[in-house]
Amino acid sequence: MRVALGLEYDGNHFCGWQTQPEGCGVQNRLEQALSDMAGHEIAVVAAGRTDTGVHALCQVVHFDTETERPLSAWVRGINANLPPNVRVLWAHVVPDDFHARFSARRRDYQFVLYNAPVAPAVMANKASWFHLPLDVEKMAEGARFLEGEHDFSAFRASECQAKSPIRNLYQAEVKKHDDWIVFNFSGNAFLHHQVRNMVGALVYVGKGSFAPNYINTLLQARDRTQSPPTFSPDGLYLTGVGYEAHWGLPPTRRYIQFFTSNS
Amino acid sequence: MRVALGLEYDGNHFCGWQTQPEGCGVQNRLEQALSDMAGHEIAVVAAGRTDTGVHALCQVVHFDTETERPLSAWVRGINANLPPNVRVLWAHVVPDDFHARFSARRRDYQFVLYNAPVAPAVMANKASWFHLPLDVEKMAEGARFLEGEHDFSAFRASECQAKSPIRNLYQAEVKKHDDWIVFNFSGNAFLHHQVRNMVGALVYVGKGSFAPNYINTLLQARDRTQSPPTFSPDGLYLTGVGYEAHWGLPPTRRYIQFFTSNS
Repeated sequence: MRVALGLEYDGNHFCGWQTQPEGCGVQNRLEQALSDMAGHEIAVVAAGRTDTGVHALCQVVHFDTETERPLSAWVRGINANLPPNVRVLWAHVVPDDFHARFSARRRDYQFVLYNAPVAPAVMANKASWFHLPLDVEKMAEGARFLEGEHDFSAFRASECQAKSPIRNLYQAEVKKHDDWIVFNFSGNAFLHHQVRNMVGALVYVGKGSFAPNYINTLLQARDRTQSPPTFSPDGLYLTGVGYEAHWGLPPTRRYIQFFTSNS
Repeated sequence: MRVALGLEYDGNHFCGWQTQPEGCGVQNRLEQALSDMAGHEIAVVAAGRTDTGVHALCQVVHFDTETERPLSAWVRGINANLPPNVRVLWAHVVPDDFHARFSARRRDYQFVLYNAPVAPAVMANKASWFHLPLDVEKMAEGARFLEGEHDFSAFRASECQAKSPIRNLYQAEVKKHDDWIVFNFSGNAFLHHQVRNMVGALVYVGKGSFAPNYINTLLQARDRTQSPPTFSPDGLYLTGVGYEAHWGLPPTRRYIQFFTSNS
């Protein structure tokens, strides 16, 4: 029996998604909780890896087991064995040809950036921070150059293991709510550090170092070494993974929004 | 010279506001940072104490010093000496008869409650959680009984040291945004655990154990032992402190909202 799970986690307490020998990956904790519950060793496959400090509002994974349990018992039982910063949102039995990674048709990321003179304290690890005023309209204009199918070499980490730098970005949106800037990115797939590198370049546009067209210049140059530095992971959320409707999964896309304001 | 500070902090990393011998109070860290900056020992007075796990979006404190520094240097310098989960929002020179606690005319609290079958992971310590569906309209109706001047003995912790249980509650509001319920309370002052005890009683109304009028019954009974248990501190924020306009302080009231939703 193949089971898919929707997962939320706070990346700040883990060294990323992937299993590590020291046991600090989210995957370590989930596989341990699942194995305890099933009574046999379970390995999970995730839609996408997340780096150290990156959060997930809806990561999707699958695993195989012969242990028959009601789905609600899987959710409650696994959550009882997980630390409070990882939660299983739902469990769903899927056909054996469903694959959390290879069946995924879309990945959604949000990046939350607090733009104010003083850094956030309560949300210190839930948002990134930039202290100088940013022009969000110019950033949104720059972001539109990123939409579509492109060679994203300019925004690709040197250690990226993908075969091709070509990705199709369906959405690159920048919006402001009070002092909070929220970036929404959706694409067929993402290169290593792609979102944080795109955010880094858009911040250069927002602070006025370059015009919005700079983003297009970077894309055309395809040279990571010419591009602005990678932004911090604190504000990055994997918010969803898209699958074809015929798999019949529960909701696999979520949003988070922040507002603080003076009265 | 007397200086007032606006402060934001994440209560989850501290054993409350007040200085403790083990050094785990927010006050310990702030007094250390201030003393390092001023070159002499500094003691601060806060508008109100917050318990372990309770956050502040705008706590107000004052201290006295002979060390002359530009106000912006106080903000930057103290923040450089504080852990990232405590931030000074502003510094303002005040007359010597200003007192963070005794000059305060109003305190504002928000309580954030996540109401969904599965607990929040990313916001685990930023919100409290209740798993059964709550009727927010009934809770709002119950909350209205709390507004006005009352004897709040029913909502007062046994260890509360206030001389009188009479408090004037200017606002008691309950609103829902997706799965997030936000309570707003404003009053001249609050008893120990008063907000968490009021939230506990309103949750009993919301889950259908009692009609909204139950809140009035509790108020009239003035008996803590007859009232529902104290709710967890995770979702509690001191959001503001009100002072008369003639002190000329920067904004001393803030709001926070965050919500998650399925697309």
